[in-house]
Amino acid sequence: MTESEKIAQLGSTWPGFRPSSGDVAPMQDSFGDPESFDEAIADGLGHLTRVFGTAPVAPEAGRERLAALQEQVCAANRFRIPAIAHEECLTGFTTWQATVYPTPLAWAATWNPELVRRMAAAIGSDMAAVGVHQGLAPVLDVVRDYRWGRVEETLGEDPYLVSELGVSYVKGLQSSGVVATVKHFAGYSASRAARNHAPAAVGPREFADVILLPFEKAVVTGRVDSVMNAYNDVDGLPCGANDTLLSGLLRDRWGFEGTVVSDYWSIVFLASMHHVAADLPGAARSALHAGIDVELPHTSGYGEPLRCLRENGSVPADLLDRAVLRVLKQKARLGLLDPDWHPGQYTAPAGFDSPRNRSLARGLAEQSVTLLDNDAAVLPLVSPSSVAVIGPAADDTRCLFGCYSFPNHVLPHHPDTPMGIDAPTILDAIRQEFPDAVVRHEAGCPITGDDRNGIEAAVAAAAAADVTVLVVGDRSGMFGEGTSGEGCDVGALTLPGVQEDLVEAVLATAQRAVLVVVSGRPYAIGRHARAADATLQAFFPGEEGAVAIAGVLSGRVNPCGHLPVQIPGDAAGQPGTYLAPPLALKSDGVSNIDPTPAFPFGHGLSYTTFEIGDVDVEEAVVAVDATITVRATVSNTGDRAGTLVPQLYLTDPVASVTRPVRQLIGFTRVDLTAGESRAVEFEVHTDMTSFTGTDLRRRVEPGAITLTVAQSAGDPGSPVQVRLEGDTRGVDHTRVMTTAVTVRWD
Amino acid sequence: MTESEKIAQLGSTWPGFRPSSGDVAPMQDSFGDPESFDEAIADGLGHLTRVFGTAPVAPEAGRERLAALQEQVCAANRFRIPAIAHEECLTGFTTWQATVYPTPLAWAATWNPELVRRMAAAIGSDMAAVGVHQGLAPVLDVVRDYRWGRVEETLGEDPYLVSELGVSYVKGLQSSGVVATVKHFAGYSASRAARNHAPAAVGPREFADVILLPFEKAVVTGRVDSVMNAYNDVDGLPCGANDTLLSGLLRDRWGFEGTVVSDYWSIVFLASMHHVAADLPGAARSALHAGIDVELPHTSGYGEPLRCLRENGSVPADLLDRAVLRVLKQKARLGLLDPDWHPGQYTAPAGFDSPRNRSLARGLAEQSVTLLDNDAAVLPLVSPSSVAVIGPAADDTRCLFGCYSFPNHVLPHHPDTPMGIDAPTILDAIRQEFPDAVVRHEAGCPITGDDRNGIEAAVAAAAAADVTVLVVGDRSGMFGEGTSGEGCDVGALTLPGVQEDLVEAVLATAQRAVLVVVSGRPYAIGRHARAADATLQAFFPGEEGAVAIAGVLSGRVNPCGHLPVQIPGDAAGQPGTYLAPPLALKSDGVSNIDPTPAFPFGHGLSYTTFEIGDVDVEEAVVAVDATITVRATVSNTGDRAGTLVPQLYLTDPVASVTRPVRQLIGFTRVDLTAGESRAVEFEVHTDMTSFTGTDLRRRVEPGAITLTVAQSAGDPGSPVQVRLEGDTRGVDHTRVMTTAVTVRWD
Repeated sequence: MTESEKIAQLGSTWPGFRPSSGDVAPMQDSFGDPESFDEAIADGLGHLTRVFGTAPVAPEAGRERLAALQEQVCAANRFRIPAIAHEECLTGFTTWQATVYPTPLAWAATWNPELVRRMAAAIGSDMAAVGVHQGLAPVLDVVRDYRWGRVEETLGEDPYLVSELGVSYVKGLQSSGVVATVKHFAGYSASRAARNHAPAAVGPREFADVILLPFEKAVVTGRVDSVMNAYNDVDGLPCGANDTLLSGLLRDRWGFEGTVVSDYWSIVFLASMHHVAADLPGAARSALHAGIDVELPHTSGYGEPLRCLRENGSVPADLLDRAVLRVLKQKARLGLLDPDWHPGQYTAPAGFDSPRNRSLARGLAEQSVTLLDNDAAVLPLVSPSSVAVIGPAADDTRCLFGCYSFPNHVLPHHPDTPMGIDAPTILDAIRQEFPDAVVRHEAGCPITGDDRNGIEAAVAAAAAADVTVLVVGDRSGMFGEGTSGEGCDVGALTLPGVQEDLVEAVLATAQRAVLVVVSGRPYAIGRHARAADATLQAFFPGEEGAVAIAGVLSGRVNPCGHLPVQIPGDAAGQPGTYLAPPLALKSDGVSNIDPTPAFPFGHGLSYTTFEIGDVDVEEAVVAVDATITVRATVSNTGDRAGTLVPQLYLTDPVASVTRPVRQLIGFTRVDLTAGESRAVEFEVHTDMTSFTGTDLRRRVEPGAITLTVAQSAGDPGSPVQVRLEGDTRGVDHTRVMTTAVTVRWD
Repeated sequence: MTESEKIAQLGSTWPGFRPSSGDVAPMQDSFGDPESFDEAIADGLGHLTRVFGTAPVAPEAGRERLAALQEQVCAANRFRIPAIAHEECLTGFTTWQATVYPTPLAWAATWNPELVRRMAAAIGSDMAAVGVHQGLAPVLDVVRDYRWGRVEETLGEDPYLVSELGVSYVKGLQSSGVVATVKHFAGYSASRAARNHAPAAVGPREFADVILLPFEKAVVTGRVDSVMNAYNDVDGLPCGANDTLLSGLLRDRWGFEGTVVSDYWSIVFLASMHHVAADLPGAARSALHAGIDVELPHTSGYGEPLRCLRENGSVPADLLDRAVLRVLKQKARLGLLDPDWHPGQYTAPAGFDSPRNRSLARGLAEQSVTLLDNDAAVLPLVSPSSVAVIGPAADDTRCLFGCYSFPNHVLPHHPDTPMGIDAPTILDAIRQEFPDAVVRHEAGCPITGDDRNGIEAAVAAAAAADVTVLVVGDRSGMFGEGTSGEGCDVGALTLPGVQEDLVEAVLATAQRAVLVVVSGRPYAIGRHARAADATLQAFFPGEEGAVAIAGVLSGRVNPCGHLPVQIPGDAAGQPGTYLAPPLALKSDGVSNIDPTPAFPFGHGLSYTTFEIGDVDVEEAVVAVDATITVRATVSNTGDRAGTLVPQLYLTDPVASVTRPVRQLIGFTRVDLTAGESRAVEFEVHTDMTSFTGTDLRRRVEPGAITLTVAQSAGDPGSPVQVRLEGDTRGVDHTRVMTTAVTVRWD
């Protein structure tokens, strides 16, 4: 290969991308790209960017378009090497007429890795069917501040839960032959004041134990094939220029062998935004040296700049070859270098919203809806004569979808294009679910803005109805377009617009009221939950989400969602996380701001009741390198079948550093019929008690630990103590462990 | 000395302290101390805690009490070694009838190190006169989040400004023979969500360049004799157990030779709050090993626990001796070991609120009041016929004082004791300042709570008056008692209680309105400042503060205060600081939350106008180890005398790490008569451009830098460029430099 041919393998192009179209954020408009397609592929091409995901293209037309573009790419280079076609797939294949699954925060509320794996496999098979090779998901950022706009894209605030679900997504997607891309590596969620792209202020221990852990598991356990760098800097060093992170840790320590792809434009940003490079060649040199192999979505950072650097000798040939080899190896693994591969080999798709997909979307939605409170036992609703469905999120499809879904991400720029999938609103679904009830709807107010004119009518409708279902929350979009989503960071965790006023007015009047929050982040709704008769939390639940919510309301579905984030008690007090040492959780005599959540991490009720008893450990004293077996009996003490999520929490009462008061180290799901009991066994390797010491090495420390099998982080449970004996032991990064959980008949 | 005698030198006792009296925070009530005074001093005593500052004691009675206690201490130990008597002195000697100076945030607004030095010398001389040896000030925490309750105690958000003023305080206090104590070492201001005592999430580079710098300067340049550890942990390691911080950095690298004293109870907290020690002996061992020499305010952490540790051999004798020697050396330096020292040697004080003190307090107050906005040129008020003085802070002395002042800290627990000093309220001072005007007062609402009943009367009074002076803000206290002060952290930067509503209503009605904010932190008052005709910001200005504010209103005083913190544009969006790289300051296309301040750091208007011109550098190219000379001509272009504060800002356009868009590296004050011009010369050593690199060493990098002489961080000025040539150079921590500024006739 010539140097130009090599450099071409490190770049990408985005056919149909128009910088000022509003397709992407305004900050990305200022770059010279794109060049023409012919120019971009003259020497070959690394990646083809979002052929499906840029504008509405029907499945078969998309397949044909991609095949035609690949034919052009192959024809233009001497070796007939095609490009890797990548797409977004955060809530499903981000293309027109494709299934919109729940947002990741909703998958996380299912606590169901197996279902996530099956969803990802389905997403992958749809993508693979039409010749897409790589998906830019999952997001493994661990939530540190609920104000951040991208909370909806995450798997919540616990590194273990994020890891388990993230690895499942990776395995599922890759089982279909599609490369998964874990992002954003690393620290994006810890940005200052939760502002998108702002610097992350985080110390190295917190970085290792919280931020990096899911990435480590995705590499070591999930064998993920691609990693995307984060935009932000950590303590002043932008991730795209951080060779300790992208090479030292990722490859040398964790053994990663895939490709590192740049988050869109982030190589250019090293010069234009971070100012750690004087110009584009400087940015390219930093990024290549650090370990970014492929530039997305264009070649403005790596194309011409790399040619300059090679000409003036400021980048050695082997640095270029290192990246090129990684790309070519990935293409080889994908079969793209096979002699019989050809652009037209993909078959016409049956459509991207198959019954299989819808069934998975329904399952995830049903398992994600979380019953926060049902003190008045108003739920399930039994034969209501009249239902007032109030609130701006009740009859708006966009309130069901996350920011990277095709309907919310692309269709707003194509207002004449129909959504292309069947996605009833919550109002539609309630009408369907309660055919004998008189259903009346009042929005009350919009999602955003300060129009209170509809509140009076909403209050009147609520007062007149047998039951009020009050549906409030977010509409996701990008930057100014949404109340949640990329760039849609907020100041306070109060419901957007004047929805707080609507909720207060309606709850003061309604006879029986169910509050349903459909959102991308947790809001401080504790006060409203106390005023309502029951409260449901749904994180954007996708195209089947409304039917799932209606099913929970009627009792057709017994809720089993559990919070992957806290519902905060205070609208301020951020950043915040349950994963905190004692002094971060204390207010009495310490601070006027109380960090106690309204509903704890892991919380979620059912229409039946559960008990966890007979908690015991096999041996109360174990070596620092051993397995601890914790057993418990879980019982359904109510009168209908339901699903319990027993959660194993670690408490480390004394350590060489401050430790979280509670930390999740194991969980499972147990389906129990009425009156049924089962034995659950957690096999916890002592590595699961490890943390990064002040020497920045992971270690297991001897001494007492406490283990609790609980229904949430706020459930006291019956703690059992285990003593670890021996010397403090270093823990190898290549053996990231998982707590195995067995459920059996007792 | 016996071991018990040695251990006694490391402890302290607080005569008169009652754990449940409300004297201190509730979290501190749970300790077994105090033992009886006789028990505490049986083997000698390291420190006597706050003999003056616990309860109202008149100056002479206090002197006599301290002398009597010292006589007991001397008599009880074989060597007749007295204790070091320490007191709080944050806003003056914290004792009854003593001058209450402005709060540190107000000193910082003066940008006048010389005046701060003179104040500290006066404080020190009052303390020294009655036998007090050590003062627990200044606070060198650099503000990182305006929500933090202790912002009022700091010198603002810029490490250079904090350093210059902090060193001046240290030199002033120590010039009187009183040991200064810099605190809180380190990271307390970076606590998560600005919650008191919460963990600090901060990377090592930010820690070195922002948090540590003022401490480094206080040690290296200020030769401070004592350092107090911070309560918080940084990245999981509590400062009180951090030997890298308290020994490696402080002593080995910076050459500190004084004593490290514990923040009150913080040794005990290592076990009881941080859980990095299993019990008190474990906490004592950690603290002693880390480098805490003296426990304050009692001996519960070091007394009996250290005896146990010595008995069972888990602390070596030389570790104990190391601390004891430091204490004894400090006592020797203080003259306490001199043969002729005796407890009764101190003379009866003339009183602690002398004309000298009041004059200093007046000067600081006058120079601290900051004119934010005077668009309508309503100020100064010329012969107003009637003045409506509105607002809950207008007639409340407590709104003039910081949280560690005797009236706000101690007197609330002694409600029958008079304040003991003359401190007119703002209402009093306005009546005095405008004897010919009809002055009417309406509080409108309280500082806290939601009582809106007075707003109507306030609006009516404002509507009827020629001029309205609207005085709102904080009342400082501890924990639940205040809206600013220790533990009084807030969620949003809106005025406390219903003052936002009061301001809105009054400004909508008043004919000419001056908004006066008297507070301990900056609030997001941009909207109100735009509605008002003029806006003044005063941080708790002390006993002479009201007269100073009235003087500014009348024009008797020409304002020259400049903001040591930004006035934020958004009530949320915290943490926030002006000292931020580009992506922390950007919102368009990045984040819905705009970090642009309402008024920038360094901002402050005058009744005259100034220009800065002829900005030039002597040499446009200098070596990386050289001095850059920047010259400018500053002119008073208005019609009355005034004081300009020219500020020198560094911009480093490209570096190996992200750099603040602007960073203060020099400033001075220039008094200029109407029409006068002067030449100002800044001599900036290139070390002032240094920062901590990714290798965690401080370095000067070659390349272009930009220097701007400006009237605030938001003033574009006329930047001049300088190129640094040579190799990247490491910078020695023992040569912390200051920019010398010369003002001369041109």
